[in-house]
Amino acid sequence: MTDSPVLALAKDLISRQSVTPEDADCQKVMIERLEKLGFEIEVMVFEDTTNFWARRGQQAPLFAFAGHTDVVPAGPLDQWNTSPFEPTIIDGYLYGRGAADMKGSLACMLVAAERFVAEHPDHKGSIAFLITSDEEGPFINGTTRVIDTLMARDEKIDMCIVGEPSSTNHVGDVVKNGRRGSITGDLRVKGIQGHVAYPHLANNPIHKAMPALAELAATEWDQGNAYFPPTSFQIPNLQAGTGASNVIPGEFDVQFNFRFSTELTDETIKSRVHTVLDQHQLDYDLKWTLSGHPFLTDTGALLDAVVTGVEAVNGTKPELLTTGGTSDGRFIARMGAQVVELGPVNATIHKVNECVKVDDLEKLTDMFEQTLVNLLGQ
Amino acid sequence: MTDSPVLALAKDLISRQSVTPEDADCQKVMIERLEKLGFEIEVMVFEDTTNFWARRGQQAPLFAFAGHTDVVPAGPLDQWNTSPFEPTIIDGYLYGRGAADMKGSLACMLVAAERFVAEHPDHKGSIAFLITSDEEGPFINGTTRVIDTLMARDEKIDMCIVGEPSSTNHVGDVVKNGRRGSITGDLRVKGIQGHVAYPHLANNPIHKAMPALAELAATEWDQGNAYFPPTSFQIPNLQAGTGASNVIPGEFDVQFNFRFSTELTDETIKSRVHTVLDQHQLDYDLKWTLSGHPFLTDTGALLDAVVTGVEAVNGTKPELLTTGGTSDGRFIARMGAQVVELGPVNATIHKVNECVKVDDLEKLTDMFEQTLVNLLGQ
Ligand SMILES: [Zn+2]
Ligand SMILES: [Zn+2]
Repeated sequence: MTDSPVLALAKDLISRQSVTPEDADCQKVMIERLEKLGFEIEVMVFEDTTNFWARRGQQAPLFAFAGHTDVVPAGPLDQWNTSPFEPTIIDGYLYGRGAADMKGSLACMLVAAERFVAEHPDHKGSIAFLITSDEEGPFINGTTRVIDTLMARDEKIDMCIVGEPSSTNHVGDVVKNGRRGSITGDLRVKGIQGHVAYPHLANNPIHKAMPALAELAATEWDQGNAYFPPTSFQIPNLQAGTGASNVIPGEFDVQFNFRFSTELTDETIKSRVHTVLDQHQLDYDLKWTLSGHPFLTDTGALLDAVVTGVEAVNGTKPELLTTGGTSDGRFIARMGAQVVELGPVNATIHKVNECVKVDDLEKLTDMFEQTLVNLLGQ
Repeated sequence: MTDSPVLALAKDLISRQSVTPEDADCQKVMIERLEKLGFEIEVMVFEDTTNFWARRGQQAPLFAFAGHTDVVPAGPLDQWNTSPFEPTIIDGYLYGRGAADMKGSLACMLVAAERFVAEHPDHKGSIAFLITSDEEGPFINGTTRVIDTLMARDEKIDMCIVGEPSSTNHVGDVVKNGRRGSITGDLRVKGIQGHVAYPHLANNPIHKAMPALAELAATEWDQGNAYFPPTSFQIPNLQAGTGASNVIPGEFDVQFNFRFSTELTDETIKSRVHTVLDQHQLDYDLKWTLSGHPFLTDTGALLDAVVTGVEAVNGTKPELLTTGGTSDGRFIARMGAQVVELGPVNATIHKVNECVKVDDLEKLTDMFEQTLVNLLGQ
């Protein structure tokens, strides 16, 4: 039995060792097939990162598939049951690094586009692919810079499906229609170093800061909303002291991170944190790093088309969630695009023995094709 | 002008580079002179540390001078105005590493004993010297092991002057008649590691521990008493986190130290800390290290003799304090001895350009001699 087109393409991509920021010619394989379909190709190399932008049509609305060809490292080889870069099918599952995150998705997008264009050569609007090899890495030279380039020339994506593995138990059971924002604060609380035997000559920044930190950790930042869980505050790192048990430290470094809903903005969060620190009369420096604003696609043509497309294949509607980490969707959403994420089951991503159900690849291709039909099919 | 006996001896000792645990024959110099006075000498070597015990007389009460021949390292030589191991007199001050802590004191004790024995060859009781070369180091093989040896053979020091630099502005303005206890707790609070995007699957030990630590830091442990300041709690060190801003740590390490008065015992402190940690329902390991029990000599023949001795020289009584770090006095006090500390001005100890006023060495010798007269002189 020969492999189906989507399975054959997924295997080809998995066999290429494209650990971030390597692309290993995955994009070349995709580009060659998109060129045959009449896409105009624009390769965008930023520093060590290869990206491409492909577009078919000049009209609005502009619909885009987004994804990444890079994968995380294989991890401990002795815990893999197969060779991570030799795609292998066992009991109906395709094993290999990137099978679920997200070379399987890339194959589904591409085959869906091929089928759709064959049926609808004169489709409405435009179809595009925004593909990077920098999603698993520092995400500095990937999607965000392609978006910068598009915005600079007023080329606006109206609707976008990111092929990240959104599903929990079977493909399409969950569509991510937003993501929380993420902001990190690096706080240095300043005191006066001294000897523990002479505490009146010192000022322990740990003692001063703890009530403030306890208050931040106990604060209800919001209650979330219909789409977002409540904003969460976490302290991932802190450090103080020289190691000597008789020295009161002069500085106390604390890092905290917010995952925040659309009920808050980064400016609100900063202001509320500063208020707490100031109320506790701390002497401090605080450096903020915004990783991404929250985004939400709760209405619109895209969400309707995706939900209908999933329902056509599964017979049931997907659940709409905004949980999980950040994704490149945040960069696309900032140009005002409707963005949803739909992809395979994420149970094995970034782990050894990453896999995707072969049957799910066929279903996901159908969902993507059906979405194209719903949006651009006349 | 030739140097006085006490100045000559102080210079000789300073010129020997006895950085812990080196003794550089300082003890040999002292032993030769004590032998001439009729002291019985017992050299006690434990591991890398040389100590000696010298005793004159077999009767009670047994009075001892205690001190150390080792010094801390010189530190940055370019900041010294003189060579730290070449004793030099400038404007009435003797400069050199150990001048104040405590080779000056050793010279005073020895010359005081020489003068006293010359005047009182048939003195009451016994005089002893307990000298170590391990006071500035780990204090494992020094005074504490000499005390163990004496206790094992039921030889009990009744009264002891430790020659540590107790004075603040001029010699004898302060006598230390006790020291706080010191106990350190190494706490590991346990949680569940996880990703900051999924806080419900993790349990941040920092968040759980902060209210408990804030409570410990805010607690009034006691109010001190006539001789001791209130017990103090300090966190010198803490650490948690992998460095990654998206990982909730699984463990949180905190070290705290108590300097405690005679109002508390180490057992009371441990019990109260465990109560707070347990009330906050923390999952933790806690390892305690007791550096020393508090001790206090608030009455008795020794304190009377020292106060009278200081007053005879200065015309004013010394202030009695228990402030400052730990000293070897704690080891001697645990055999039930009365212990006080009397020595030079401590402004320059452990610093560059350590010095002692030459005139203070003469006064301190007089104070020590007068104390011997008061206690054992008939
Ligand atoms: Zn991915
Ligand atoms: Zn000392």
